[in-house]
Amino acid sequence: MTQTLGRATGLTPQDRVTTWLADFEAALAAGDIDRAVAKFATDSLWRDLVAFTWNIKTVEGRDQIADMLGERLEGTEPSGFRIHEEATEDGGVVSAFIEFDTAVGRGIGHLRLKDDQAWTLLTALAELKGHEEPKGPSRVLGAVHGSDPDPRSWAEKRQAEDESLGYTTQPYALIVGGGQGGIALGARLRQLGVPAIVVDKHERPGDQWRKRYKSLCLHDPVWYDHLPYLPFPQNWPVFAPKDKIGDWLEFYTRVMEVPYWSKTTCLSASFDDNTKTWTVEVDRDGERVTLRPTQLILATGMSGKPSMPTLPGQDVFAGDQHHSSAHPGPDAYVGKQAVVIGSNNSAHDIAKALYENGVDVTMVQRSSTHIVKSDSLMELGLGDLYSERAVAAGMTTEKADLTFASLPYRILHEFQIPVYNAIRERDKDFYDRLAAAGFELDWGDDDSGLFMKYLRRGSGYYIDVGASDLVADGKIKLAHGQVDRLTEDSVVLADGTTLPADLVVYATGYGSMNGWAADLIGQDVADKVGKVWGLGSDTTKDPGPWEGEQRNMWKPTQQENLWFHGGNLHQSRHYSLYLALQIKARHVGIPTPVYGLAEVHHLS
Amino acid sequence: MTQTLGRATGLTPQDRVTTWLADFEAALAAGDIDRAVAKFATDSLWRDLVAFTWNIKTVEGRDQIADMLGERLEGTEPSGFRIHEEATEDGGVVSAFIEFDTAVGRGIGHLRLKDDQAWTLLTALAELKGHEEPKGPSRVLGAVHGSDPDPRSWAEKRQAEDESLGYTTQPYALIVGGGQGGIALGARLRQLGVPAIVVDKHERPGDQWRKRYKSLCLHDPVWYDHLPYLPFPQNWPVFAPKDKIGDWLEFYTRVMEVPYWSKTTCLSASFDDNTKTWTVEVDRDGERVTLRPTQLILATGMSGKPSMPTLPGQDVFAGDQHHSSAHPGPDAYVGKQAVVIGSNNSAHDIAKALYENGVDVTMVQRSSTHIVKSDSLMELGLGDLYSERAVAAGMTTEKADLTFASLPYRILHEFQIPVYNAIRERDKDFYDRLAAAGFELDWGDDDSGLFMKYLRRGSGYYIDVGASDLVADGKIKLAHGQVDRLTEDSVVLADGTTLPADLVVYATGYGSMNGWAADLIGQDVADKVGKVWGLGSDTTKDPGPWEGEQRNMWKPTQQENLWFHGGNLHQSRHYSLYLALQIKARHVGIPTPVYGLAEVHHLS
Repeated sequence: MTQTLGRATGLTPQDRVTTWLADFEAALAAGDIDRAVAKFATDSLWRDLVAFTWNIKTVEGRDQIADMLGERLEGTEPSGFRIHEEATEDGGVVSAFIEFDTAVGRGIGHLRLKDDQAWTLLTALAELKGHEEPKGPSRVLGAVHGSDPDPRSWAEKRQAEDESLGYTTQPYALIVGGGQGGIALGARLRQLGVPAIVVDKHERPGDQWRKRYKSLCLHDPVWYDHLPYLPFPQNWPVFAPKDKIGDWLEFYTRVMEVPYWSKTTCLSASFDDNTKTWTVEVDRDGERVTLRPTQLILATGMSGKPSMPTLPGQDVFAGDQHHSSAHPGPDAYVGKQAVVIGSNNSAHDIAKALYENGVDVTMVQRSSTHIVKSDSLMELGLGDLYSERAVAAGMTTEKADLTFASLPYRILHEFQIPVYNAIRERDKDFYDRLAAAGFELDWGDDDSGLFMKYLRRGSGYYIDVGASDLVADGKIKLAHGQVDRLTEDSVVLADGTTLPADLVVYATGYGSMNGWAADLIGQDVADKVGKVWGLGSDTTKDPGPWEGEQRNMWKPTQQENLWFHGGNLHQSRHYSLYLALQIKARHVGIPTPVYGLAEVHHLS
Repeated sequence: MTQTLGRATGLTPQDRVTTWLADFEAALAAGDIDRAVAKFATDSLWRDLVAFTWNIKTVEGRDQIADMLGERLEGTEPSGFRIHEEATEDGGVVSAFIEFDTAVGRGIGHLRLKDDQAWTLLTALAELKGHEEPKGPSRVLGAVHGSDPDPRSWAEKRQAEDESLGYTTQPYALIVGGGQGGIALGARLRQLGVPAIVVDKHERPGDQWRKRYKSLCLHDPVWYDHLPYLPFPQNWPVFAPKDKIGDWLEFYTRVMEVPYWSKTTCLSASFDDNTKTWTVEVDRDGERVTLRPTQLILATGMSGKPSMPTLPGQDVFAGDQHHSSAHPGPDAYVGKQAVVIGSNNSAHDIAKALYENGVDVTMVQRSSTHIVKSDSLMELGLGDLYSERAVAAGMTTEKADLTFASLPYRILHEFQIPVYNAIRERDKDFYDRLAAAGFELDWGDDDSGLFMKYLRRGSGYYIDVGASDLVADGKIKLAHGQVDRLTEDSVVLADGTTLPADLVVYATGYGSMNGWAADLIGQDVADKVGKVWGLGSDTTKDPGPWEGEQRNMWKPTQQENLWFHGGNLHQSRHYSLYLALQIKARHVGIPTPVYGLAEVHHLS
């Protein structure tokens, strides 16, 4: 056996990965799928980001791997597998970053070997041959040296483009939504030379953040949040306040030269199966414009549309009622009484700001919530990849993203459970105090904690930046159960508890992202593509069957030429690359046969 | 002798630097200046950036070094000299980056040994103890974790500061001029917590670039141009167009949270010797405001005020006349005739744009000009420090700046002459063609080329980005000599040549930067501080005596609490650090005894 031999002869991790890659490549080159598959362990997982499958797809176990290679080996023509950095070994698992080529592109990835068999393999397309991004050594010159046949200045050319794009010329791609997702993708498409427009309803880029409740800060730290090409500066705060992020996004849009239509609302969109193009009606600051893009990307916020509960008495309540997404902050309610319905991130942030501004505030907890202190999450959850410590140890954003992506979702919870066990131990006193105050805690269905909750359901947690102490101390009051009704001046719970209120904030979450597709294109298309986000983990709010990847995100959907994009800043950064490469390939006519297009199991 | 011993025993460069530093430090610690000075070669040069001298000062030879140490050793308390990176040897010269401490700060620097004696030593203050910038591991948190005693959001705090600074609170420093110099310094002072305002006459930051002639691009490449904290992204052009730089500066100002007053003109300034503060009257968009800063920094452009020649007939000339700084570009002159007076950078840029837009253009060369092709300058002049090649070899901006700063001006030309000899060889055909077209070429008084011309006189050259071919081909016409007069429709030269003209552009340069001080504060103060820029090299337009450093730049002047700042993007980046540290030290009351305050030898 190869692995026994390897062990016996004391091969280095480097040797072992090199040998594996050489054997694997030889099998692929010979078209010998059985031999290639035999290089994988029986419980192996191969995650592919667009390199082999033109999809975001994890194949699990030898049968699925064989099936995928049977479909895609011939067209992919993989070659040149090699180690990118020194391989390492830890606990019997040998790991290495790798590089490889395909017929049309260059790929990077990551390999883990157990007993000299592949346990996890990540293959990710990095760039398309002949369509490399102009950056670093290939960056554009800017000034034209020598006599210039086009005497227009950069500003004049930009202005001419702005005036024609969407009118006399059509964008190949239309991105609806100009938050971090839309502009990160817009920046990448710009770099790749794909004509694209980002449209957004707000007045300025960044208003998506500026217009939220005033105490909002990022809950993810700066090292996790860099956008493509332009990292935050070294004096950027760990947790940026919302207005500062807003300014950055505005800056970023301009610097990256992303064509961006502000004050623009999409009215309708329809796909023509014959011409394979969309017809999208938009209102651009009062002007009606018809756009005819080939690709339509919804980057309208991972959260979907606000979920506003319908409750008896909402019509008679005399105070103010806001969904959390529209809550302006505490200033108008000083000295008054507020009820915040919900107990996740927004509920805590809003309740904290209300309390600190002299509002009497009660939080209504309807179901248990997972709480993690921000510093514990930073140190134990993200620290190895995204922290100043990681930077000092040579961890780049690209390597961190690849490492993060290299753990298939099927086994990710196994890596998360010990992290949250350690956090539970570390912060025991904190959790005891919260529980003593009556706060109902959970750690996810399988104790896998915050990140798995985020991936599975996008809700059910609070990253504590101080509100939990206020809850534990009784400064933010706590109530429990469902809301039965509102009266003119109170919120009445199912058990009859009456909470006097001048303000009710519904921190009640959001619907599925395909709700936006329903509004824009029609319920038939929303149903055709189905639920967005979630893994099919068969846990609370993430029904099975198992999907293996996020539903519908950054990959082809059941609706031709319709895509979903977004997520937190990390996802907007990393996955915009794969979406941009898929769109670029289609733009230049590179064949993109999709392997394993996901079926739809849930409508929303 | 130490050096003989070192040679004989085959010590590594690392050993030799370590030994030198240990001996040097021991001598300093013992207060034994003679012993310390004996560590230097007789032709040695010690360049200090604020670390020992609270000045920007090069002391030359053992006597000057002894004098400086005699004045400053006791107060500086230098210690902890150590190598920062592996020492190297090249051609008998051992080089190393070093680090050290002083009583009040931490320093970095660079050492060159010849025969185990110091040939060049750079000592540069990097930060003040107890006043380190919050960045990297010490960056601010942003969000306040735990209950926040100040419930205002970041945006509200910023707004409150904007409303009070300059009205109910006074800035410690006032920076006049908001180009790259002003905002780079503004960003550093912000980081250091020094209350400062940048005032500028334009509508928006970046207008200093936007409002120049439309074909303007940077002539320095991107690697040379990064501003502090926030480097340009990897997709930034090599030579950025003016409007793109303008946008970058505008957003840089915002991202760095630099207090910046647009549309603000300084009307007058006067210094009170008793209170040691300035009274500065400004017009802020129509509102009269009196500011009372302690430190006043003129960052009004290194070029000083435009030099507009007075010529007979200017009043009867029927066409348009612009100084180059106010020339709008070719658009209004298509099909007409233009005369550009001058043959340096702006003259070439403007003539090229005029020609390319169908204007008949003649350039009047009044004296010989130094021409270097941009790509030759990039490859041979800057490539080792500022290029994609340098980045790939591990050269950071900080290391490049330190290396650049480590060559004292006294010997810099010796390093430059071989570079320009190589360029002259490489581009021989190009220069022959230019000469054949009648263009009068020079290479500087001592053949040391472009960079020394820039440092000595800030003029006399063109970095060729295409105009020279147009000159060589006769497409941009050439005339020679001084201008005698203008008529209603022509420019008449001293030899009687008559050049028909609808447009005359005076690319005739700028006065000394202390001209701004004359306007703002008074001729007496302008005369007191004297000429700004130049080295006293006793070459054309840079009269002696030798100064050793740039006159009046980034260092104390003969007018207490008056400073000059600016230069190209490289200088604005690097030297803003030393100016900011000098101002910060004064702000917090750290003693700053200035060694070797420069005398004034020229008024302008």
